[in-house]
Amino acid sequence: MKDKIVVALGGNALGKTPVEQLQLVKQTAKPIVDLIQEGHEVVLAHGNGPQVGMINLAMSTASNSEAGTPEMPFPECGAMSQGYIGYHLQNAIREELLNRGMNTPVATVITQVIVDKEDPAFKHPTKPIGSFYSKEEAEVIMSEKGYDMVEDAGRGWRRVVASPLPIDVAEKETVMALIEKNHVVITVGGGGIPVVQEGNQLIGVPAVIDKDFASSKLAEIVDADYLIILTAVEQVAINYGKPDEKWLKELSIEECNQYISEGHFAPGSMLPKVQAAMKFATSKPGRRALITSLEKAADGIEGKTGTLIKM
Amino acid sequence: MKDKIVVALGGNALGKTPVEQLQLVKQTAKPIVDLIQEGHEVVLAHGNGPQVGMINLAMSTASNSEAGTPEMPFPECGAMSQGYIGYHLQNAIREELLNRGMNTPVATVITQVIVDKEDPAFKHPTKPIGSFYSKEEAEVIMSEKGYDMVEDAGRGWRRVVASPLPIDVAEKETVMALIEKNHVVITVGGGGIPVVQEGNQLIGVPAVIDKDFASSKLAEIVDADYLIILTAVEQVAINYGKPDEKWLKELSIEECNQYISEGHFAPGSMLPKVQAAMKFATSKPGRRALITSLEKAADGIEGKTGTLIKM
Repeated sequence: MKDKIVVALGGNALGKTPVEQLQLVKQTAKPIVDLIQEGHEVVLAHGNGPQVGMINLAMSTASNSEAGTPEMPFPECGAMSQGYIGYHLQNAIREELLNRGMNTPVATVITQVIVDKEDPAFKHPTKPIGSFYSKEEAEVIMSEKGYDMVEDAGRGWRRVVASPLPIDVAEKETVMALIEKNHVVITVGGGGIPVVQEGNQLIGVPAVIDKDFASSKLAEIVDADYLIILTAVEQVAINYGKPDEKWLKELSIEECNQYISEGHFAPGSMLPKVQAAMKFATSKPGRRALITSLEKAADGIEGKTGTLIKM
Repeated sequence: MKDKIVVALGGNALGKTPVEQLQLVKQTAKPIVDLIQEGHEVVLAHGNGPQVGMINLAMSTASNSEAGTPEMPFPECGAMSQGYIGYHLQNAIREELLNRGMNTPVATVITQVIVDKEDPAFKHPTKPIGSFYSKEEAEVIMSEKGYDMVEDAGRGWRRVVASPLPIDVAEKETVMALIEKNHVVITVGGGGIPVVQEGNQLIGVPAVIDKDFASSKLAEIVDADYLIILTAVEQVAINYGKPDEKWLKELSIEECNQYISEGHFAPGSMLPKVQAAMKFATSKPGRRALITSLEKAADGIEGKTGTLIKM
């Protein structure tokens, strides 16, 4: 049976340099194309942590140097990262498809994700971005630019931005039109360019939308059958790393809630993945979320591995 | 009558900083939306000279600094510029459409333009990009990175890349699918990310594809009725800037050839625009190209101004 699948790929899987990325996307493309070859419709979302960090750092370094290039706001850096990552990713998938005799078109859509300007996250920015500074430098930056900055685990001061929840995908009509036209669509890169709506205007805000939550929202919007959240491990575990570690083949919503309250899933790591999976799985009967590794994605859809989360 | 129109917008019209760009796209959006409101289908191509120059300079400055960010190849800088420009442009057009009660979706497609690796332009790179260096610095860069560099009008040494002719648009199916789905599509930004085809692979090459030639090729591919090439002046002139200057309402292909041979159009300025217009106008009976200013685009389509080039 043909399923519509949103795959959420981690930004760490894409490497830290263009040379690395160009190599890594070749590996990424194979399991993605396996899914397409099985007859599934695939929409690809991806993270951009290391990439937007690098772009932001480069733009900010150059703007403070003799080069005198302009300061680049964080949402614009996100838009750049979508172009940079999408270009490599779409080519690798296109090539893998052609190598297997498939002509499916692949497209990268510059995608904005709408957040609520009243989201409480804006009052408590927690997501560190960019370079480390001394306390003195940080104080100057905070007063000059109005940035929020915090001391980061003894390594110095760093800018923090909010991580609000996604409420809509601005380019959803485009994504749906391309799915209908049999495209593999690359979208909500880095969780999407974060924007708030003011009347008819979309305004970029310095924020990082969790890419798993953005992918979950996207999967709802495009009415996907599956959300696959890719991670470094094949399955979700309780008592992870302990002697009584237990890998899980399936998780009900009740079990998810129980394990979350017992603190089994690490914040900023497995926790948001489980939460994003739950959100999608409970959004409509029949929707299923799978957490597994890139290599096991196709096996997971066939029920052979991964952790399935469903109502 | 409803026409399909490819509009080629100059990169200079987008400003040099994100703050400037965000203002300028608002002005750009109005005449574009005028065309859409008249019932035309609009595909928007744009230049990226100042923007990709800025990104390339920032990435190269940061990679040579303590920040130690990776060196960014020129095609990747182009992909970034498409994201950066498309993000602002699509939002401005979307807002202007909504202000006039129209819900037409607007999308930016990361777009590669295929060039021939045997294009003679690769043997004679002429397009300067990036920073100026001393002769000594340039010699080190040329030997270390294999770049072509030339002395630029007494201002120092600069890298030069080839300006090959576009032969195809890799994402043409995507662009056509979105036009069919009633989208305003932003594509071939900066003339497209330049790639060569090697078997099933598309490989980025350091080059700058003239955005008017790329727009002309795009207009052929999407079977447009009109190609509008926007420039700083309302019409094309012969004897430009001289006492016998004459503004032209219409140009036949014969007249174009005659005036080109007489040297009326400046290379790197009006000449490629006239050549790109001729290429489209002669590609199929009924196709017309218009050279005019952004503000006069809608009047031009109605035959009130601009310079019309047709077979």
